[in-house]
Amino acid sequence: MSAGAPDFEAALKAAIDGKTKPVGALGRIEALAAQLARLQGTLAPVAERCRLTIFAADHGIAAEAVSAYPQAVTREMVKNFLAGGAAATVFARELGAEVVVVDAGVAGAPLDDPALISRRIGPGTANSALGPAMTGEERDRALDAGAELGRAGQAEVMAFGEMGIANTSAATLVVAKLLGLPVAGIVGRGTGLDDAGLARKRAVLERAALRTPWRLSPDEALAEYGGFEIAMMAGAMASAAVARRLVLVDGFIATAAAACALVRAPELRGAFVFCHLSEEQGHAAVLHALQAEPLLALGLRLGEGTGALLALPLVRAAAAMLRDMASFESAGVSRG
Amino acid sequence: MSAGAPDFEAALKAAIDGKTKPVGALGRIEALAAQLARLQGTLAPVAERCRLTIFAADHGIAAEAVSAYPQAVTREMVKNFLAGGAAATVFARELGAEVVVVDAGVAGAPLDDPALISRRIGPGTANSALGPAMTGEERDRALDAGAELGRAGQAEVMAFGEMGIANTSAATLVVAKLLGLPVAGIVGRGTGLDDAGLARKRAVLERAALRTPWRLSPDEALAEYGGFEIAMMAGAMASAAVARRLVLVDGFIATAAAACALVRAPELRGAFVFCHLSEEQGHAAVLHALQAEPLLALGLRLGEGTGALLALPLVRAAAAMLRDMASFESAGVSRG
Repeated sequence: MSAGAPDFEAALKAAIDGKTKPVGALGRIEALAAQLARLQGTLAPVAERCRLTIFAADHGIAAEAVSAYPQAVTREMVKNFLAGGAAATVFARELGAEVVVVDAGVAGAPLDDPALISRRIGPGTANSALGPAMTGEERDRALDAGAELGRAGQAEVMAFGEMGIANTSAATLVVAKLLGLPVAGIVGRGTGLDDAGLARKRAVLERAALRTPWRLSPDEALAEYGGFEIAMMAGAMASAAVARRLVLVDGFIATAAAACALVRAPELRGAFVFCHLSEEQGHAAVLHALQAEPLLALGLRLGEGTGALLALPLVRAAAAMLRDMASFESAGVSRG
Repeated sequence: MSAGAPDFEAALKAAIDGKTKPVGALGRIEALAAQLARLQGTLAPVAERCRLTIFAADHGIAAEAVSAYPQAVTREMVKNFLAGGAAATVFARELGAEVVVVDAGVAGAPLDDPALISRRIGPGTANSALGPAMTGEERDRALDAGAELGRAGQAEVMAFGEMGIANTSAATLVVAKLLGLPVAGIVGRGTGLDDAGLARKRAVLERAALRTPWRLSPDEALAEYGGFEIAMMAGAMASAAVARRLVLVDGFIATAAAACALVRAPELRGAFVFCHLSEEQGHAAVLHALQAEPLLALGLRLGEGTGALLALPLVRAAAAMLRDMASFESAGVSRG
C-alpha cells in the first residue's frame, strides 16, 4: 500500500472518517493529517521533531534605501539568533523546535561563532537595480548548499526562515518575474517603510524589473534578483520535500523561495504547508498564484520563520489526531 | 504600577516596541501578549499551565430530532474523554494541557468513574420547544458549580469545552434571545444535518423561540433555552476571569456561554480570547455581535474545546515573546 494509490487513499479516508467526530468536523486539521500521511506513507504519521533553519544574507539593493533599517541589522540579528533573543528563537524554544542559523552571505567579515553554519556565497549580493544580483555559478552553489541543509538532521518537519535587510525587495522582484505579477501590485512596506519610502522602493524595483524580460525562469529570476538566503532556502525546501519531510513555509520571502522550488519541481507540492498570510502587501497575491491557502492569518510581517513555527502545533495536533484518536468502533460510540 | 494605569500601559508599549522586531511586526501575537500582561499585571506574563474543563450534559430538545446523532453519544463521548481517545483529549496531550471532565447533567444513571467530576443538575434539561429547559434554581446551581470549577487548580490559562447532543440548538436559542439575532440567520447543521434535517431544526427552534419575548437577559435565556453544560461553562468562564486567568473560548456553544458571562459582566472582557471561527452557521454573527475577532479559522465544528486548545500555543508564544525576547538595547541591534 503506497501513498497516492487507491487503496492507501481509501484506507486514509476510512481512518479519518472513522475517528470519533462528525465527518469533516476537524476541517483543515483533517486535511493536514491527510497531507502528512500521504507524505510519510503511513496512517500513523509523526511530526514531533522540527528543525527551523534560518538563512541570513545581505543584499546589494539595500544601497538604494529600500529598507527602513540599516544593512548592519542583518549581522546584528544573526548574533541575536545565536544568543536566543530573537522572536524565532524564542518561539522555537517555547514550541519545541531546534534552530540552525546559516550565514548564506552576510556583509562584512565572516562571523566567528561555532554555532553558526557558514555557507557564505559572498559578502552580500550585487545591486540588482543595476545588474544581476549573483552569477549563475553563485546561484548554483547557493542551491546546492541549501539542498545539503534540507537533507540534514532527523526532523520530520522542516521549517525555514530568513533574515536579510532589503530581502522583501529581492523577493518582490523574484516573484514578479517568476509569476508574471506587476511589481506595483506586490511591492510592500517590508520592515515598515513610510509612504515616501514605499514610493521610493516601488520606483527602484520597477526600474530594476525593466532590466529583464517580463517573465523569467526560477534559475534566471534567482540570479537576476534573488538573494543568497532565498536561493539557499529554495534548494533546502526542495531537498527536504524530496526526502519526504514536511516543509513549513513562512511569510513573503519564504514563499518566494517556495515558488522557485515549486515552479522547478511542481511534483513536490504535497510536502509544502503554507503556514500564514503575512501583512506584507504582495503575499496574498503570491499565495493566490500558487493556489495556496495559508493556515493562519495573524498580521505577522517579521519573517525569521516565526509564522512557520506558529503553525507547528497545528501539524502536531493533526498527526496526533490520525495516530491517537479512537474510532467509533474502538470507543463504542454510536454513529450518526 | 497596576494594569490599565497610564504608567503600566506606557511600560507595556515600550517593552513590546523595544523587542528586536519592527514595531507591530508580530501582529496579533503582540496584542495577545499585551492582553495577558494586563490581565496578570506584569510585563513577564506566564501561560504555561492550561486546564481544559469539558462540561457534558443532555438536552430535552434532542427529542425533536434536531441532531444527526442519537442522545446516547453524549454519554459515550464522556467515556471517550475519560479514556483519552477523543479529539480534545488527544490535542490536550499533544499540546500540554490537563483535562477535567464534568458531568453537568448527562441522561441516564450517573456515570461511575473516579476521574469524572460529578456536578449533575439533572439527567438532561427539559424540552425547551415545549417549556423552560430548566428552573431558575437549577440554572443558579449550574452557574455556582461552574464558578467553583473556574476557580479550581493552578493554571494561568483556562480552556473550556462541551459535549451534549443537541447543544447547538440550545446555544442558538440562547444567543438569539440574548443578542436579538433571528433564529433563521444563525441556525446551522451542528454535527452534520442534511438539508431536510436543517429545515426541521429551523422550524423547531423558531417555534421554541416564539414561546418567549424577542430579547431575554442571560439568566432568562439560560433557564428558558440553555443547557446545564452551557450555564455551568458561563459560570466557570466568569469566575476564571475574576481570578484573572485567561479564558480560552472555543466554538459556537462556548461562545454562547461567553456571551452570557459577558452580558452579565462586561468588565471581564479583558480575560477572554475568542480562539477560532467555527464552521457552524451562527458563529460569525455571534462573534460579530460581541465585537470579537477570532484568532484562528480552520473550518472546525467539533466543540469539546478543540479550537481553544489549538490557540494555546499562540498564547504561550505571545507570553514568551514579551518575557524572553531581547530588546534592541540588550541585543545591540540597530533601530530603524
